[in-house]
Amino acid sequence: MTELDLTSPALPVRPAAPAESPAAVDFSDRHIGPRGTETDRMLAVVGYDDLDALVDAAVPAAIRTDRPLDLPPARSEEQVLADLRAIAGRNRVMTSMIGQGYSDTVTPAVIRRNVLESPAWYTAYTPYQPEISQGRLEALLNFQTMVADLTGLEIANASLLDEATAVAEAVALMWRASKAKAGTVVLDAELFGQSREVTLGRAEAIGLPVVVADLTDGLPEVEGALVGVVLQQVGASGVVRDLGPLVAAAKERGALVTVAADLLALTLLRTPGELGADVSVGSAQRFGVPLFGGGPHAAFMAVRPGLERMLPGRLVGVSVDADGAAAYRLALQTREQHIRREKATSNICTAQALLAIVASMYAVYHGPDGLRAIAERVHGNAVRLAQVLTTSGVEVAHEQVFDTVRASVPGRAGAVVAAAAARGVNVWAPDGDHVQVACDETTGPDDLMAVVLAFADAGATTLPRDEDGSHRVGFVGPRPMDVPDGLRRSTAYLTHPVFHLHRSETAMLRYLRRLSDKDLALDRTMIPLGSCTMKLNATAEMEPISWPEFASIHPYAPTDQTLGYAELVTQLQDWLAEITGYAAVSVQPNAGSQGELAGLLAIRGYHAAHHADGAPVRDVCLIPASAHGTNAASAALAGMRVVVVATAADGSVDLDDLRAKLAQHGPQVAAIMITYPSTHGVYEEGVRTVADLVHEAGGQVYIDGANLNALVGLARPGEIGGDVSHLNLHKTFCIPHGGGGPGVGPVAVAAHLVPYLPGNPTPGELGAGVVAPVSAAPWGSAGILPISWAYVALMGGDGLRRATEVAVLAANYLATRLRDAYPVLYAGPGGLVAHECILDLRELTKQTGVTAEDVAKRLQDYGFHAPTLSFPVAGTLMVEPTESEDLAELDRFVEAMLAIRAEIDDVAAGRWAVEDSPLRHAPHTAASVTADTWEHAYPRELAAFPVPALRAGKYWPPVRRIDGARGDRHLVCSCPPVEAYAE
Amino acid sequence: MTELDLTSPALPVRPAAPAESPAAVDFSDRHIGPRGTETDRMLAVVGYDDLDALVDAAVPAAIRTDRPLDLPPARSEEQVLADLRAIAGRNRVMTSMIGQGYSDTVTPAVIRRNVLESPAWYTAYTPYQPEISQGRLEALLNFQTMVADLTGLEIANASLLDEATAVAEAVALMWRASKAKAGTVVLDAELFGQSREVTLGRAEAIGLPVVVADLTDGLPEVEGALVGVVLQQVGASGVVRDLGPLVAAAKERGALVTVAADLLALTLLRTPGELGADVSVGSAQRFGVPLFGGGPHAAFMAVRPGLERMLPGRLVGVSVDADGAAAYRLALQTREQHIRREKATSNICTAQALLAIVASMYAVYHGPDGLRAIAERVHGNAVRLAQVLTTSGVEVAHEQVFDTVRASVPGRAGAVVAAAAARGVNVWAPDGDHVQVACDETTGPDDLMAVVLAFADAGATTLPRDEDGSHRVGFVGPRPMDVPDGLRRSTAYLTHPVFHLHRSETAMLRYLRRLSDKDLALDRTMIPLGSCTMKLNATAEMEPISWPEFASIHPYAPTDQTLGYAELVTQLQDWLAEITGYAAVSVQPNAGSQGELAGLLAIRGYHAAHHADGAPVRDVCLIPASAHGTNAASAALAGMRVVVVATAADGSVDLDDLRAKLAQHGPQVAAIMITYPSTHGVYEEGVRTVADLVHEAGGQVYIDGANLNALVGLARPGEIGGDVSHLNLHKTFCIPHGGGGPGVGPVAVAAHLVPYLPGNPTPGELGAGVVAPVSAAPWGSAGILPISWAYVALMGGDGLRRATEVAVLAANYLATRLRDAYPVLYAGPGGLVAHECILDLRELTKQTGVTAEDVAKRLQDYGFHAPTLSFPVAGTLMVEPTESEDLAELDRFVEAMLAIRAEIDDVAAGRWAVEDSPLRHAPHTAASVTADTWEHAYPRELAAFPVPALRAGKYWPPVRRIDGARGDRHLVCSCPPVEAYAE
Repeated sequence: MTELDLTSPALPVRPAAPAESPAAVDFSDRHIGPRGTETDRMLAVVGYDDLDALVDAAVPAAIRTDRPLDLPPARSEEQVLADLRAIAGRNRVMTSMIGQGYSDTVTPAVIRRNVLESPAWYTAYTPYQPEISQGRLEALLNFQTMVADLTGLEIANASLLDEATAVAEAVALMWRASKAKAGTVVLDAELFGQSREVTLGRAEAIGLPVVVADLTDGLPEVEGALVGVVLQQVGASGVVRDLGPLVAAAKERGALVTVAADLLALTLLRTPGELGADVSVGSAQRFGVPLFGGGPHAAFMAVRPGLERMLPGRLVGVSVDADGAAAYRLALQTREQHIRREKATSNICTAQALLAIVASMYAVYHGPDGLRAIAERVHGNAVRLAQVLTTSGVEVAHEQVFDTVRASVPGRAGAVVAAAAARGVNVWAPDGDHVQVACDETTGPDDLMAVVLAFADAGATTLPRDEDGSHRVGFVGPRPMDVPDGLRRSTAYLTHPVFHLHRSETAMLRYLRRLSDKDLALDRTMIPLGSCTMKLNATAEMEPISWPEFASIHPYAPTDQTLGYAELVTQLQDWLAEITGYAAVSVQPNAGSQGELAGLLAIRGYHAAHHADGAPVRDVCLIPASAHGTNAASAALAGMRVVVVATAADGSVDLDDLRAKLAQHGPQVAAIMITYPSTHGVYEEGVRTVADLVHEAGGQVYIDGANLNALVGLARPGEIGGDVSHLNLHKTFCIPHGGGGPGVGPVAVAAHLVPYLPGNPTPGELGAGVVAPVSAAPWGSAGILPISWAYVALMGGDGLRRATEVAVLAANYLATRLRDAYPVLYAGPGGLVAHECILDLRELTKQTGVTAEDVAKRLQDYGFHAPTLSFPVAGTLMVEPTESEDLAELDRFVEAMLAIRAEIDDVAAGRWAVEDSPLRHAPHTAASVTADTWEHAYPRELAAFPVPALRAGKYWPPVRRIDGARGDRHLVCSCPPVEAYAE
Repeated sequence: MTELDLTSPALPVRPAAPAESPAAVDFSDRHIGPRGTETDRMLAVVGYDDLDALVDAAVPAAIRTDRPLDLPPARSEEQVLADLRAIAGRNRVMTSMIGQGYSDTVTPAVIRRNVLESPAWYTAYTPYQPEISQGRLEALLNFQTMVADLTGLEIANASLLDEATAVAEAVALMWRASKAKAGTVVLDAELFGQSREVTLGRAEAIGLPVVVADLTDGLPEVEGALVGVVLQQVGASGVVRDLGPLVAAAKERGALVTVAADLLALTLLRTPGELGADVSVGSAQRFGVPLFGGGPHAAFMAVRPGLERMLPGRLVGVSVDADGAAAYRLALQTREQHIRREKATSNICTAQALLAIVASMYAVYHGPDGLRAIAERVHGNAVRLAQVLTTSGVEVAHEQVFDTVRASVPGRAGAVVAAAAARGVNVWAPDGDHVQVACDETTGPDDLMAVVLAFADAGATTLPRDEDGSHRVGFVGPRPMDVPDGLRRSTAYLTHPVFHLHRSETAMLRYLRRLSDKDLALDRTMIPLGSCTMKLNATAEMEPISWPEFASIHPYAPTDQTLGYAELVTQLQDWLAEITGYAAVSVQPNAGSQGELAGLLAIRGYHAAHHADGAPVRDVCLIPASAHGTNAASAALAGMRVVVVATAADGSVDLDDLRAKLAQHGPQVAAIMITYPSTHGVYEEGVRTVADLVHEAGGQVYIDGANLNALVGLARPGEIGGDVSHLNLHKTFCIPHGGGGPGVGPVAVAAHLVPYLPGNPTPGELGAGVVAPVSAAPWGSAGILPISWAYVALMGGDGLRRATEVAVLAANYLATRLRDAYPVLYAGPGGLVAHECILDLRELTKQTGVTAEDVAKRLQDYGFHAPTLSFPVAGTLMVEPTESEDLAELDRFVEAMLAIRAEIDDVAAGRWAVEDSPLRHAPHTAASVTADTWEHAYPRELAAFPVPALRAGKYWPPVRRIDGARGDRHLVCSCPPVEAYAE
């Protein structure tokens, strides 16, 4: 090989710059909206000569870092895609027959391209503004209907993070519902290992007694009352038992029952509802969602009537709009963490909307008959495999199975696994003496053959041979259906027309388009949601997640098959540590809420390890009044008591109150959870003082990374006093919001907390960490980590810093342009805001009756998604433009907001009553403004086209303002019959 | 290795079906819309018990085949994708530095995902209905503006098929414009080989004298007048010459001048317009369009004012709508083949809209500065490479180059090519003594280094070595700009705002979405265009075209790198031969029109080879009056005289007139071109008689495959008398229409015509065929052939036949449902139509004044793309539903058509005057129905929501009815200044 010296001026003319690389335009120029003269004009409006001057004025010197980001230089899109292809190539795609809650599946191509790969779906936000979210709300209602039908329970939520946390949530729900003060929850020994470990960890944190028991001989005796039982319908060992007697026994003892179920198996087996269960949980992954190396996947929870108000996660319900038309919106939000805080049913905020939508569309596309056919095929293959193994002399464990065959191979399990791998198939060895083989939708005769031959290769059986020496094995016989009548499902499911109408690809394609057209996502407008950082999700970042080398990896695949993932995760964790100034990062938490919990559990673990005998337990978590409700809910889940710290007039932590609270709770203080910049959108000068005071009291400082987009490259949480932070990769690091998930919430910790990062949930590899895992898979939502990896690689350190600076510029530009029309509630140094600003409507509301909600809904008529409404301060709008919006879009928003202010002035001037104003009647549907009769005080054209630019292309909200309260009073959470829409 | 017997009942229970494969639902169930009870209901309406009975009644026994399709069994989507991955894996992706008109390029990911991979763009039809095509018309106008700006000529068309045919079209244009009866056109010896060969072939067919000349010493003397000259600005050898003196000399001799140009080079070089050229042609491929193994790519042609009416291909122009708003539509359609038939300027019908749109968006995204930066980088790398080679002792041919360096390596060209290939780079050897290396956007220092080392490896130079033995080569020095002032461009380009507004990915994404939202494509509605077969373009068929192994292959890559393509093309050709009943197929023609030409050239070649001395030349092509205009235009291009055969009252060929024409032209008859089923949409009983009569007269029978979707699996053109057919893969075989291209038009021939299939255009491999190539690349648009391959593989023989049967059922269902409201013009056996039906509006027009156009436009208000308007019979609508529309969509169309008939009845009843009816004022924009004042006789709600289902989601036409004639009178074919829209 010839070594080359690229810089040596050996031959040519003059030494200078090297030959140019193919990156004429830096990716950061594509990611960042404002450029060149645009930036100059914005700076002029804000009143600064250059970006440095603005940033110096806005960001307190006390928090600025003196160390630039030490990251690889920015790479071009092509280079990053090539590098990711190389990394992906170090993962090996094998046939996965591991099972354990993760089954390979065929994502229908029409769904892959038009949902998973469609910006109209993946760039959408959580459907808090229901009028512009009817498409994804319908898709999620389909998901709920599907889960409710298949589980036989009446009410299902719109997804949970993963099956393991769903089990943990079910345990918590049973405790709440039982109202028991003491007692025990029993976990079936047949639970998947990851479900068991996550649940035990969560229960331990809040002090709930939970025991694991072999239920072969019935329910065990327990300490205190039997609060609840969690059964796994298709056991981790593959067994399918008659759960009826266990459920009856539990009920007799007054316990609640949760059944962890497999949606595909439920097309054949009696439902949890029929069995008498109160709750059912599970994963919808095998309904078309790729393995993704462990996630993201949508889990589900369904409950019987009476438990709906205790249901964690989001719930879509049917209500009506101002014209009386059926309309969807999130129901029973009063349960949720953003309202109930530490009293919430769960800390879950982001769910897995995009994956739930994929799963729901899989059911829509296949329909009940198609799903049953798939289930029968999977089951038939498993039975056939069991037959062949049995007749080959291998002992098979269970008489009744669904998809998984467990075989006894004393002492040879490792050999069988290795032999199967050599034939391209991964099987599962729960111990040294057993091998389990799980069939799935993709299993074919070749796969079964490979497995049988692997048993032979490993000497676990001897197969007959022909005279030429070749093995003789045949999989023949009619498809057996060995499910006994008592276990077999007899009830109908998926009877709603939506599961029958879209059977051709053309029909499916149009249904997907029709739904997405109802919604406003980033592909049509800025989504200036304060605290949510809705920025570009670049295509080059998104493309790799579809590659089989990332999408088709089982989370428990042998480590020599996942070297690519290991490399990607390690690099990303290192980069995030560099960006945040911490010692280490774990990407395991698959949502911000789980990141918070992991961070608090690390603090808890640290305090426990350093607890002196007799000292009070450190279990107080100080949380400022302005904090996001999730903080408090997470603290509760970590077994901490929440103590609120007051907020000063300028939005910062009230230091006097902090001192008072520290004086009061000092030795019991575990931590303070602050957000920086605060949810008030300003860089608080005193953050270091806050940290110092808490540290002096022996507490740890948790800095919520929700607003990290205001810090990257300028400051590091780990350098301003933080001991731990979680990040939201779906905010700062470009993972799309997916209409309400997936999210990724890595936890970053200082050196002293590294031992307390989440443990490994992989069955057989547990106990590595001293802290329990918080998610079902070792790397959480590994499948979408390439997005954030690509973002950092594309931007480089300079690009990331500039993105932060422009985000700050954009927020201050909007604040300056809008300040005269809408007072900006808080400001930091120099009268500047950070990366977002709060517009205060309260005085205008007092004067005119026009509310912040009216403005939010009226913005829909202008083609905008509303800013964050009434958080953190009721009666306000919090605006975060991010760095990705160019000046034209910022100005379009300013134009809309000023036009709306003029409409408010018209109310004030008496031109229209607020009750008959375009504000109160917003949003306006096309039907409403084309009605033959028009009886409003304001003209049609003002309703429809308040600014001329809308005539070039207008988004029409599909429904009018929705009556949420009515929907909660008349709760309907599954697809209503078609006639219902005619009401 | 262990051999396995899958069927042997060695072990298990009973012999029967094998273990099941993972294909629960056959793909044909996804492709075909109606299913189960739907099909039954449709049959009941039509009056048949089952599909067989209907087909037996509709299709004359005389044409039915007795041999089922012999094709591989249907495969699942997953299997086909896996099989295609294996085939793709046999192509080897190398760094391509071959050049010769094909340069590697970076397709911006945002454009790849949101145009090339977006159904909203690729499933759209040609923008003949401009009101629902404003998005792609704007994109194509951007393309025209870009080409006009870069070439410095005023009027550019909306793309041509490839650069080689564009040169041929330019030669034809110069002949027409010169009005010379005799004379010669001179082709620059620096023309790309494929351009030369295609042009010589086309010129020879129509008897135009064309000579190739080395122009180093000026223009040669020629026979007769010098009609025109074609120069290549960046020569095939890489040379950049001062073309000024050559152009001046040509002008002096009264000749027209065409300059074949490279769009990227034109950012640096003086334009053809400034040089005084009349015409410029070239390829837009390197503007972001993948190499695709040769195509599809968009070529361009620009002309000076005065030549616009001779321009071939489509031309987008600006006009106004009924409300006076600026609106786009196709201009000067009177030039085109569908109107002027054999007198048309060209036979081009399908163009390369989708690729032109990609290229235009590349320019929109990069803007003039970005393009110039790319060009300077490419140029800088070429200059640097020349420097290094020169200083290394290699003789470099040209002092002035753009991107391509030609080196002398006497006797070692093959060795250098091989050495470069060993280093992963393809370079080009035009002969044994020279090597050419072309730089492109993707070229980096590593590539240049590999090339230099390859020269060393091959002994073509000796590079200095360090003491450790490693070569010392460095590419350093400032970027040189060696273009002399006289050749350098000084004029501005791409000054229109559209090339400056969409620089961030977010802005680009939204622009693409905004444009596509203006258009109606198959992702939102059926497009029931008779003769156009707008059926499902399945995602699984589309996905592979994005894979690098298909997309990143140069058409002249060594054959050992393109084994995958060879396999795919061979299989597809074989399958198409089996389907059509011919001996062989060539996929080279990259449009139906080129397939026609290739077929006629085969006939021409055959007759020439069998011509007896003294016999009259066979040059008469008989064409029925009802034929598509392209037939006649193609015949003219093949050097044939068109003789029209009358159509009988039932739409079939008038046998009496045929006999008369044969009697009149007998020995001169070359061929008859018929379409089967005819463009009247019926299976004519007498087709075999027609064929027999023509054969008896010594002529050949050309059966146009436009309506093959009515035959596949039921009959074969080659079995009912055809000698040659062309197919439209973008109709029957699922290549999407792309908004007006790409198309693929393979030619299929009987055994005696096989020697006359198109020759190979690859430079250096010419002369293999006795007939000239018709397209620039050996396999034409190789890059999209995976689509049709996948379709056949997915459907299998049975699926294909069933698709045909259901297409016939659907057409007859519509005919039956609509017959009472709109008479069906033609019917065949049993009163049945074939796969389409013609609705006759003429009597209604006579009675009420409501025209077929009114109905077509009113359908837009109902959310439909109109059927084919006034073809083949003026005043009618031709409806082809295809097999992919399910019953719900067919019924939605019936509902709309019946509601429109009721509106016509209201006109008849005097409820509204036709001039103030919802029909005449259609389509209605949202602005028009929300206007504060409404003065029409009919109500707003009827205008906007004539049927209730529209309220669930309505497509709004972005403009009202467009005044096409005004636009032709005031021709504007590039982006108008923004102020113009305010007019």
